[in-house]
Amino acid sequence: MPARIILIVCDGLGDRPIGDIGFKTPLEASRKPAMDFIAANGVCGIMDPIAPGVRPGSAPAHLAIFGYNPYEYYKGRGIFEALGVGVDVKPGDLTFRVNLATVDDHLTVIDRRAGRIGGDDSRMLFHLLNDELKIPGVDIYFYPGVEHRGVLVIRGVGLSWMVSDTDPEKDGEPILKCRPLDKGVEAERTAELINRISFESHKILSKAEINRRRVSEGKPPANAILIRGASFYEPVARVDERYGLKACCVAGGSLYKGVARYVGMDVVEVKGATGTYNSDFKAKVEACMKALDSYNLVYMHFKATDLAGEDGDYRRKIEIIERIDDALYMLLDRVEDCIVALTADHSTPCSIRTHSADPVPIAIAGPDIRVDDVGRFEERLCAKGGLSRIRGLDLMPILLDIVNLTHKYGA
Amino acid sequence: MPARIILIVCDGLGDRPIGDIGFKTPLEASRKPAMDFIAANGVCGIMDPIAPGVRPGSAPAHLAIFGYNPYEYYKGRGIFEALGVGVDVKPGDLTFRVNLATVDDHLTVIDRRAGRIGGDDSRMLFHLLNDELKIPGVDIYFYPGVEHRGVLVIRGVGLSWMVSDTDPEKDGEPILKCRPLDKGVEAERTAELINRISFESHKILSKAEINRRRVSEGKPPANAILIRGASFYEPVARVDERYGLKACCVAGGSLYKGVARYVGMDVVEVKGATGTYNSDFKAKVEACMKALDSYNLVYMHFKATDLAGEDGDYRRKIEIIERIDDALYMLLDRVEDCIVALTADHSTPCSIRTHSADPVPIAIAGPDIRVDDVGRFEERLCAKGGLSRIRGLDLMPILLDIVNLTHKYGA
Repeated sequence: MPARIILIVCDGLGDRPIGDIGFKTPLEASRKPAMDFIAANGVCGIMDPIAPGVRPGSAPAHLAIFGYNPYEYYKGRGIFEALGVGVDVKPGDLTFRVNLATVDDHLTVIDRRAGRIGGDDSRMLFHLLNDELKIPGVDIYFYPGVEHRGVLVIRGVGLSWMVSDTDPEKDGEPILKCRPLDKGVEAERTAELINRISFESHKILSKAEINRRRVSEGKPPANAILIRGASFYEPVARVDERYGLKACCVAGGSLYKGVARYVGMDVVEVKGATGTYNSDFKAKVEACMKALDSYNLVYMHFKATDLAGEDGDYRRKIEIIERIDDALYMLLDRVEDCIVALTADHSTPCSIRTHSADPVPIAIAGPDIRVDDVGRFEERLCAKGGLSRIRGLDLMPILLDIVNLTHKYGA
Repeated sequence: MPARIILIVCDGLGDRPIGDIGFKTPLEASRKPAMDFIAANGVCGIMDPIAPGVRPGSAPAHLAIFGYNPYEYYKGRGIFEALGVGVDVKPGDLTFRVNLATVDDHLTVIDRRAGRIGGDDSRMLFHLLNDELKIPGVDIYFYPGVEHRGVLVIRGVGLSWMVSDTDPEKDGEPILKCRPLDKGVEAERTAELINRISFESHKILSKAEINRRRVSEGKPPANAILIRGASFYEPVARVDERYGLKACCVAGGSLYKGVARYVGMDVVEVKGATGTYNSDFKAKVEACMKALDSYNLVYMHFKATDLAGEDGDYRRKIEIIERIDDALYMLLDRVEDCIVALTADHSTPCSIRTHSADPVPIAIAGPDIRVDDVGRFEERLCAKGGLSRIRGLDLMPILLDIVNLTHKYGA
C-alpha cells in the first residue's frame, strides 16, 4: 500500500486561557468531535514550530513543518507571495510584496490600500508600470494579486534582500526610504534601486488616466506603491526528491500555496477556498480526499482560526474551530489507511491578537501508531501525550518513519 | 563511595502496537517484574537515540548513548567490527567487513556465506589471503571472525572510506564493482584498490586446496570475498578521560564490543554470551555484577530482542524479554548503591522487521533519583515519566550528573 499522509494545519490555532470562558482556550471550549477522534486514535503532543519561545512567522513555521530548516531556507516573505500568486520566478530573483496606495503631494500615505482597489483598475496600473518603469541594468516585473496587492520581481546581478520596507504600515505616515540592512555594497545598491522604483512609480501612476477617472468618480487614486518583504529566490530540493512523496497543497491563502510551491508541492485549486472567514471548509476537505488518489502527502491549511485570533475574537475562533471540525468529520474513516497529522503553525492568542510562541497541539493518527490515552485535541491535554514535546522540524522525519519512507542512519 | 553505573541496552527493544496481542507492544505484553522494578524505582522517559524521526543504525546509536556525537564520530561500521574481533588497528587504517562467499565463473554470488563456513577452513583461507595477496604501496591484513565473517584492514596513505560495497547483499547477483562515493582522488584510488583485492582474492581462493576438498565433500567452496562497511579509524578520547569513569562492556555481538573498545571500554569476555538467541543472559548479568567491583560503568548489551524484531516474531520477542528480565532479577538489589539505566539503542518493530525511529523507553533507578509514578517499563507508560523525551546524547551527561561526576558550566 502506498504511503498516504494528510497534514492538517489550522493556522494560529493555539491560544491562551481566557477568563470569560472559564479560563479555557478556544480549542478547549469548542465542540470538536472529529479533532477529538484524531487525538483519541492517535499519539499526541505539543510542538514548538521553530523552538521554545520563538514566535514563528507563518512562512518560517511552515518551512519547519515541511522539514526545511527556516534558519537555512527562509530568506524573506516576498518569494512565497510571488509563488503563491503563480509568478514564474527564476533563481536569483529578488521579490517583494507591493500595495497600490494613495499618497498626497508630500508622499504621505493617505490610504495604504487605495480604497482596496482591485479588478481591472489594479491590473491595468500594474501593466502601466511594467510598460513604463525601466531602469538600466535590471529587469522589473509587476504582477497583480488580490485587491490592492501585487508582487514586484527584480532580476539582475549584485542584488541583496537585506533591505528595509518602504511601507510605513499605517496611514498618515510618509513613504519610507528603503535602507540597506547589512554593510554589503549589494544591499546599498538594492536600497537605491528600490527608492528609485518607489519614486518613478509614483511619477508614472500620478499621470495615469485611470487615476484621473478614479478621482472624478470620488475614489482614491492609486498613485504610489508600497514595497515590503524583500526576499531572495533560491530553488530547493523538492519534497518528492527529499522524501519520495508526491505532495500537494489544499489552501486558500496565497502565502501557504507559495510555501507549498517553494518546497515542490502541487497546488490543488479549490473553488470557495478563500483563506478568509467565508472559506468553504467542506470543499477543501473534499478536495483533500480526492487528492489522496494521486498524492502521497496532502497538506491542508485552514486560515480562519488565525484571523479570529488576530481579531481578538474568541467566540469567532470557537465558531471557526467547530466549522472546521464539522468539515473534517468526513475524513475520519481515512484514519484506517492514512496517517492523519493535525496541528497548527503557531498560536495566535486572542488576548494578544498576534502570534505567540505557546506550543501548539499535535495529534498523529493512523495505522501502526503508538496510540496514547489522550482523548481530546486540546493544548493542555495533548501536552500529556506520547509524543511529549517536539519541534516543527521533527514532524516530517517522524511522519516519514511511520510510513517507512526513511533510511537508516549508519549501520 | 565510588560512582557505579550499570547501563543496560536491550537491542531493538522498542516496538509498535501489534493487533494480534490487543494492540500492545511486545514489551507491554511481557511479564517483566525486574524491568518494572527499575521503572517503579526510577525516573522514566522516552529517548530518541539520535533525533526524532531518525532511524538509527546500531553503531551510531551506541556512539550517541555513550556520549559521542555520531555525526562527528561515525565513519563507517567496519572499524567497530574490527575492534570487536580484537584486531589491533592503527590510526588511519581503513577497515571493512568481509564475507567468505561462493561465486560461479561469472562472479555471480551463489552463496553469500559459503555455507556458513567457519572454523579451520575459514581461518586457513584468510591465512592464505594474508600470505599471497600483495599489492605494492599498501599493507593488507585479513582477520577471521565468526562463521563466514572476517575483517579486512588496509594500511597505507591516501586512502578514503568513501567507497561503496562489493557485497550485492543477496544471492544470485554479481559481485559489485567498488565505486568512489565522493569526488576525491583518494576515493577513486581506494575503489580501484578494493576492486583489485576483490579480483586477486578470487584468483587465490579459487586455487586453494581447501576449496578443492570442500567441493569433493559436497560443500560450497569459499572462492571469493564480499567487502562492505568501509570505515576509517581515528582514535577518540576514552570514556575514562572524558568522564573519569573506568568502564567495561558485557556483550556477545562483536559490533557492540567494538563500539565499546572504540570509546575506550574494556571488554569482559563472558562464556555463553553469543549475541544470538541462545546467549546465556544469566552469565552476562553475573559478569556485570562481578565487574562492578572494578569498574565504575558497566555497559551490558542484549542482542536477541533485535533479532526477534528482525524476524518479525513478536512471540519470540516477548519470550526473550521475559528471559532477559529473569536474568536481570539478581541485579535488583544493586539499585541500592548503583545507578541502573535501562533502555534500548533503537526500536525494531516486528511489523516492519527493521529499525525504526520510534523512541525507546528509558528508566534510571538508584540513589538520589527523582523517582516518578511510572510503575512499568513500557514504551507508552515511560512517555509519561519524569525524564520526558530526551536524546541519546543526553544520557551520559544525565548519568554523570546523577553520580556527581560532572562539572559546573560557568560560575
